[in-house]
Amino acid sequence: MFYHDRRLQYKVRVDKPNPAFAKMLQQAIGGIEGEIRVCLQYLFQAWGNRGPVKYKNMLLETGTEEIGHIEMLATAVALNLEGATTSLKDQIVGANPVVGAVMGGMDPRHFLSTGLAAMAADSNGVPFNGSWVVATGNIAADMIANVNAESSGRVLATRLWEATDDPGMKDMLSFLIARDTMHQNQWLAVIEELGGLKQQFPIPNSFPQNEEVQGFNYSFVTTNIYKDQEAFGRWAEGPSMDGKGTFQMVPGEPLGDIPILPPPAPEGHAQTEQMTGAAGGGIVDKIKDAL
Amino acid sequence: MFYHDRRLQYKVRVDKPNPAFAKMLQQAIGGIEGEIRVCLQYLFQAWGNRGPVKYKNMLLETGTEEIGHIEMLATAVALNLEGATTSLKDQIVGANPVVGAVMGGMDPRHFLSTGLAAMAADSNGVPFNGSWVVATGNIAADMIANVNAESSGRVLATRLWEATDDPGMKDMLSFLIARDTMHQNQWLAVIEELGGLKQQFPIPNSFPQNEEVQGFNYSFVTTNIYKDQEAFGRWAEGPSMDGKGTFQMVPGEPLGDIPILPPPAPEGHAQTEQMTGAAGGGIVDKIKDAL
Amino acid sequence: MFYHDRRLQYKVRVDKPNPAFAKMLQQAIGGIEGEIRVCLQYLFQAWGNRGPVKYKNMLLETGTEEIGHIEMLATAVALNLEGATTSLKDQIVGANPVVGAVMGGMDPRHFLSTGLAAMAADSNGVPFNGSWVVATGNIAADMIANVNAESSGRVLATRLWEATDDPGMKDMLSFLIARDTMHQNQWLAVIEELGGLKQQFPIPNSFPQNEEVQGFNYSFVTTNIYKDQEAFGRWAEGPSMDGKGTFQMVPGEPLGDIPILPPPAPEGHAQTEQMTGAAGGGIVDKIKDAL
Amino acid sequence: MFYHDRRLQYKVRVDKPNPAFAKMLQQAIGGIEGEIRVCLQYLFQAWGNRGPVKYKNMLLETGTEEIGHIEMLATAVALNLEGATTSLKDQIVGANPVVGAVMGGMDPRHFLSTGLAAMAADSNGVPFNGSWVVATGNIAADMIANVNAESSGRVLATRLWEATDDPGMKDMLSFLIARDTMHQNQWLAVIEELGGLKQQFPIPNSFPQNEEVQGFNYSFVTTNIYKDQEAFGRWAEGPSMDGKGTFQMVPGEPLGDIPILPPPAPEGHAQTEQMTGAAGGGIVDKIKDAL
Amino acid sequence: MFYHDRRLQYKVRVDKPNPAFAKMLQQAIGGIEGEIRVCLQYLFQAWGNRGPVKYKNMLLETGTEEIGHIEMLATAVALNLEGATTSLKDQIVGANPVVGAVMGGMDPRHFLSTGLAAMAADSNGVPFNGSWVVATGNIAADMIANVNAESSGRVLATRLWEATDDPGMKDMLSFLIARDTMHQNQWLAVIEELGGLKQQFPIPNSFPQNEEVQGFNYSFVTTNIYKDQEAFGRWAEGPSMDGKGTFQMVPGEPLGDIPILPPPAPEGHAQTEQMTGAAGGGIVDKIKDAL
Amino acid sequence: MFYHDRRLQYKVRVDKPNPAFAKMLQQAIGGIEGEIRVCLQYLFQAWGNRGPVKYKNMLLETGTEEIGHIEMLATAVALNLEGATTSLKDQIVGANPVVGAVMGGMDPRHFLSTGLAAMAADSNGVPFNGSWVVATGNIAADMIANVNAESSGRVLATRLWEATDDPGMKDMLSFLIARDTMHQNQWLAVIEELGGLKQQFPIPNSFPQNEEVQGFNYSFVTTNIYKDQEAFGRWAEGPSMDGKGTFQMVPGEPLGDIPILPPPAPEGHAQTEQMTGAAGGGIVDKIKDAL
Repeated sequence: MFYHDRRLQYKVRVDKPNPAFAKMLQQAIGGIEGEIRVCLQYLFQAWGNRGPVKYKNMLLETGTEEIGHIEMLATAVALNLEGATTSLKDQIVGANPVVGAVMGGMDPRHFLSTGLAAMAADSNGVPFNGSWVVATGNIAADMIANVNAESSGRVLATRLWEATDDPGMKDMLSFLIARDTMHQNQWLAVIEELGGLKQQFPIPNSFPQNEEVQGFNYSFVTTNIYKDQEAFGRWAEGPSMDGKGTFQMVPGEPLGDIPILPPPAPEGHAQTEQMTGAAGGGIVDKIKDAL
Repeated sequence: MFYHDRRLQYKVRVDKPNPAFAKMLQQAIGGIEGEIRVCLQYLFQAWGNRGPVKYKNMLLETGTEEIGHIEMLATAVALNLEGATTSLKDQIVGANPVVGAVMGGMDPRHFLSTGLAAMAADSNGVPFNGSWVVATGNIAADMIANVNAESSGRVLATRLWEATDDPGMKDMLSFLIARDTMHQNQWLAVIEELGGLKQQFPIPNSFPQNEEVQGFNYSFVTTNIYKDQEAFGRWAEGPSMDGKGTFQMVPGEPLGDIPILPPPAPEGHAQTEQMTGAAGGGIVDKIKDAL
Repeated sequence: MFYHDRRLQYKVRVDKPNPAFAKMLQQAIGGIEGEIRVCLQYLFQAWGNRGPVKYKNMLLETGTEEIGHIEMLATAVALNLEGATTSLKDQIVGANPVVGAVMGGMDPRHFLSTGLAAMAADSNGVPFNGSWVVATGNIAADMIANVNAESSGRVLATRLWEATDDPGMKDMLSFLIARDTMHQNQWLAVIEELGGLKQQFPIPNSFPQNEEVQGFNYSFVTTNIYKDQEAFGRWAEGPSMDGKGTFQMVPGEPLGDIPILPPPAPEGHAQTEQMTGAAGGGIVDKIKDAL
Repeated sequence: MFYHDRRLQYKVRVDKPNPAFAKMLQQAIGGIEGEIRVCLQYLFQAWGNRGPVKYKNMLLETGTEEIGHIEMLATAVALNLEGATTSLKDQIVGANPVVGAVMGGMDPRHFLSTGLAAMAADSNGVPFNGSWVVATGNIAADMIANVNAESSGRVLATRLWEATDDPGMKDMLSFLIARDTMHQNQWLAVIEELGGLKQQFPIPNSFPQNEEVQGFNYSFVTTNIYKDQEAFGRWAEGPSMDGKGTFQMVPGEPLGDIPILPPPAPEGHAQTEQMTGAAGGGIVDKIKDAL
Repeated sequence: MFYHDRRLQYKVRVDKPNPAFAKMLQQAIGGIEGEIRVCLQYLFQAWGNRGPVKYKNMLLETGTEEIGHIEMLATAVALNLEGATTSLKDQIVGANPVVGAVMGGMDPRHFLSTGLAAMAADSNGVPFNGSWVVATGNIAADMIANVNAESSGRVLATRLWEATDDPGMKDMLSFLIARDTMHQNQWLAVIEELGGLKQQFPIPNSFPQNEEVQGFNYSFVTTNIYKDQEAFGRWAEGPSMDGKGTFQMVPGEPLGDIPILPPPAPEGHAQTEQMTGAAGGGIVDKIKDAL
Repeated sequence: MFYHDRRLQYKVRVDKPNPAFAKMLQQAIGGIEGEIRVCLQYLFQAWGNRGPVKYKNMLLETGTEEIGHIEMLATAVALNLEGATTSLKDQIVGANPVVGAVMGGMDPRHFLSTGLAAMAADSNGVPFNGSWVVATGNIAADMIANVNAESSGRVLATRLWEATDDPGMKDMLSFLIARDTMHQNQWLAVIEELGGLKQQFPIPNSFPQNEEVQGFNYSFVTTNIYKDQEAFGRWAEGPSMDGKGTFQMVPGEPLGDIPILPPPAPEGHAQTEQMTGAAGGGIVDKIKDAL
């Protein structure tokens, strides 16, 4: 179960409110790279954890910390919206294009739907979507999903940091960027503790690799038909990263047949011509429809 | 631009059609772990690629290969639906509970909406969602996103492999599992080629780390108040995985103030009592509303 | 900021695991009546709160409690999924229709995507959607939204209680039902503290009612043209519930004109006939297109 | 079944077309607080109504009226978009920043997708979502859902009223605000007719309250660990609003155990280390993983 | 504005309630081929209509009729759910596999969320989505969109007709199928009235075709590289259907360059190696990265 | 399976980058009228094709071509975003309203989430949705769905063409408009090859029309109660477009009863008053609740 302290994990200060920046901050709240996603992702991973309990414990810790990050960002959005209504009205009624230019980036729902506060949505007002919460039940797959979330999340945070010169906002973002640094390292540490990349990959490592179709598990398939250059790189030669094979490059080629489905079932009510094979007209004898 | 060969990349054979398995296969087509997602993800990463062209080339190759995987799975769904209508009718009209038991897992839209063919949706019929296509413009973040997609994708494929005893389906899945092995390795190879985890982390590695709030970028913050055990682990001591810091464990504590927002703007039409501070009734003198 | 205790707020016990019930419990986690919604709704209301701080404090308390309810339900889902894989395989491979009948209601993603754990989705696997998080910035509108959430939530919980005879599950649901009772009362208590329904309605009470078009704010408009009976009721006579008007019933009738829009702008590329007025053919002289 | 009159329920006039205001009006059409939602909500409640027929009749009436409100707003959007294309082109080609400033708030799909007309979407272009249509089958829960919809809807309408100084638009909104006043009262009138809040709460009132876990149904649970002030209020003392209990404040404390799930099922292909308990490395002896 | 008659447009009778069929009927209510979609589509087309008023009038008529079709189907769903709860309980508690087999196809939300009534969702419980409402402002494009909706809608209705042997349901569906026949014809009649396919195509017919890149507007581009057969057909020879060109078949070939984007902007925080061109390792001299 | 050539199908050149136009182009990528939709729609139709193989072949060809159109547009978006970051910063920090005016239309995620590249989303940032991929299994219904997609797509492309004066962008759009012309004709050609509209309609043509409720399949039902004019037109008189009936106009009238549902099931926990019929208060004797 959960508790709270009314104080924030880190200070949130806005020196010069900016509704357009409030809109941008929403990406870090309700976007796919945002804090609601990581919060729920870590918590659902914890709650569904099977296997060593220590990972459940750790996930619960960081998931709980992330609730406080949503809180910080939601506070930052609200503070950036101070004074927005006056400007918004100027914009809408067209009286002041200079103000309008600044306000142009405001999310209208920040006024209309929330009365100058944050939403569970991204910077375009697209609602948070639960499908982003990845919890596979495989600890390594989950750790990679978490590194992914923290990587795109830290990229986002540095871009937000670049997009503002408000000292308070830069300070808050510098804190969140620092936490993302830690969290990227933290999920990688689990991989290491479990034996490292070579032991953990390919994920899942519990599937017997001799059941894989051999010859394709360490081959780079090239589909390029413009032969000016090859897609050479580390992925096309040398030992594979999991230490269990050797990379090679092979040209793509079809190993399967042309897939032909049986005619439609009558109760599915395709067109009569589909079921009778009566399709085709004046040029039908040009067609070789058989395989 | 793109070309096709009417033959499949690998053979798709269904020995005993099973509509319930057709439904499960949809997860590998239109689910967040599925092939539409990786296909579009690699292609969008290629199309938006900035920096060394070799990565664009490689992404284009694998993105193109993945179209063929959607094709294989869509074919497998259609073949598994053969004969489904007869059984479905039995189920709906209630004449044959034994058949109904098998059919119970069928997606009704496989009959109603597609006439026994695949959809761009997951195993619950939830449509594919473009938000899953991650392409950040940061090559390391994108590679991790790709390892994530291939990890959860391979976990899914092995579970599908476990859920069937149809030899044709097991063979097709063994091919897809092999390709996932390659692709996990492939994306990790880019990280290595760029200098390895230590050079690439934290992502993005172009942000000056001295701008981070120091003291928080390598600290595990514990929020646990039940003191029976600590969340010890590799993430709480020793050098950080990026080689740039030392892990430590610190108790969570608030460094920020209690956030208090100014009163609502009049044109936002909050309740009158919110604007006048008139809230509260008989027990209001118990309340110390000031900080 | 937030803390946690690894123990649950209330005990969660499953005596006889049932994957179909696991699927049903998902509605209480990720459905519109579910706990993720109320959790985020109360927290976002708290974080965006303007006006008396006491309501922010209270919302923060209950929002924090709700995180623990998601945790309880996620645990219940995982426990109900114990043993599901064996049965699932029987179902898919068609060997055992009796088991299949019971398993028929299982969510395939509970195996495929999570490895026997909960998701941030409803009982049909439709992901949680952030649009459900209502926080208007108007304290009375928010309290009603909360009563709404707790009412449909308690209805759901009682239906889940009816759908199981597992003593552990019934006990857990009896706890959640009790909390919903409290929370319904709690939000109504704010309305009372603020002066009661008559003072708070119509919401928002800060809009000057003399700006409303008079004659329509307390009139029940009937659109029924089948005159066998009238829609009489408390809403059609007597004083209005807000004490500011008198209900009356009036027949619906158009007070506006037929809306006719100007022709399309050329750069919008409607059909030529739309822009030239050349539409219509042999029977066009029957048409009186003017108003 | 349904009929129409080509004239509008109330006059819609736009004196000075404003594409940015057209965008804002979309919130009242296709947003969660909008008219499509209430229209479908009342109609689905009517169509699914069980119990006294009089409520079905009434819901059908108001649901039908709401169709006409969508019509009024869609007309208002189209009229506000008059002249938008010329300005839009100036904006896009960058010739006229002053015009661009005003146009900055235009929804691009109002030109691109509809040719200057309304969409079934909110003010950010997010499509209307059927999940918002609440019809629980419990008359009291539904009435509260309706008061909720009309409360947030009226808050929205008053904000739109503030955001424009177009006399025609202000007039139309004053009509819609009046109707929202009536509808809030109307749904409350049903609660009163059914015996009032005390008889109807807690919702559902048909669940035997002795089945609730006693001691929690009228207790405010505090999760606050920062002891500067208590969350006192009407909800923490005195008789409960439903008249069936007495409010008290209790500290949050865990009554459940630490939830530990069994190891993963083999066919779910978690990592090998999860199934063998082999996780952990050099510092594993610090870990007390048992409860 | 709109009116209603409490009686249905056509009789709805269910002889033998079947919850699984109730679930299937949802596709016709809230699916992309369903009645909410056509209802809103025709109404939004009417409300946004520009050009000859007669089409607005007609669209308003049929849009209004469709509300009554949603009503009929919602009633049919509710009637099919009669008796479902008893069976559902049997299913969930596992007492009766035969009943469970029949109930297996029930939508759990039909009990949990609506209390045995219809939802604004499809047969998988996926909510209706406003993006399906197509109203382009181009009368011909809209008519084709309407033929599309009625075609897939009639296919759906005939499949539902096949899936039941309940006389009442078959009768209701026969009525809806008849209406779909009319509506398909109706939208085609507008095309004819406007001059027929040749005058209306290509849509929009107001764009000057000499602005098209010539040589590509009537050419079938083949991307097939497996030369066993050509994709001959009516589309590859003879006059085009709009009478304005002649079909020909041409091989696909690239007319554009390899697209190379400039390096990332520094404030976007790509990896350092992307900005410095330092990517690549031991085999980098094999790479010819220039075009 | 699929192959690619690194060169584009047609040249993509941006003379003057414009981030606001980049945002508009997104509609042609990830909108309902966009290229991801047609690409997947044709491919899924091909993969699920039953009946004459020639149509599968053809669909595969054009679906493959469309991948290259997404590629062209994604490239165009990236090129239009060149230089956007500098301007964006000016906008956000408010230093330069003139630049801000131009930038006002930029999608913030083009910087925040992609680092100046395209997304799988529409011009409002709403993600691509797999529900738009229509593949019914009925060849005629699918062809009409395709004409629909290409019609609204070509309308969109001509509007984009109008919204820019960049010569490179106009050229690229002229190519895409030309391809849309071809594709509209192409799908109509299938209808003709199959015998033409009269043979193919009503869709599906395999349903026995004598099973339709006669008298309603060629009747225009008028719901208009404002008798100033009739909705005369081609759809109200003369032979039907499928040649199988004669249009007539009939007034709407109810043929069904008032639908009354049985009382709620006890385990659904409606309010007690719904189940006992105890609803209604002081004016209940005015109510004639029976039919």
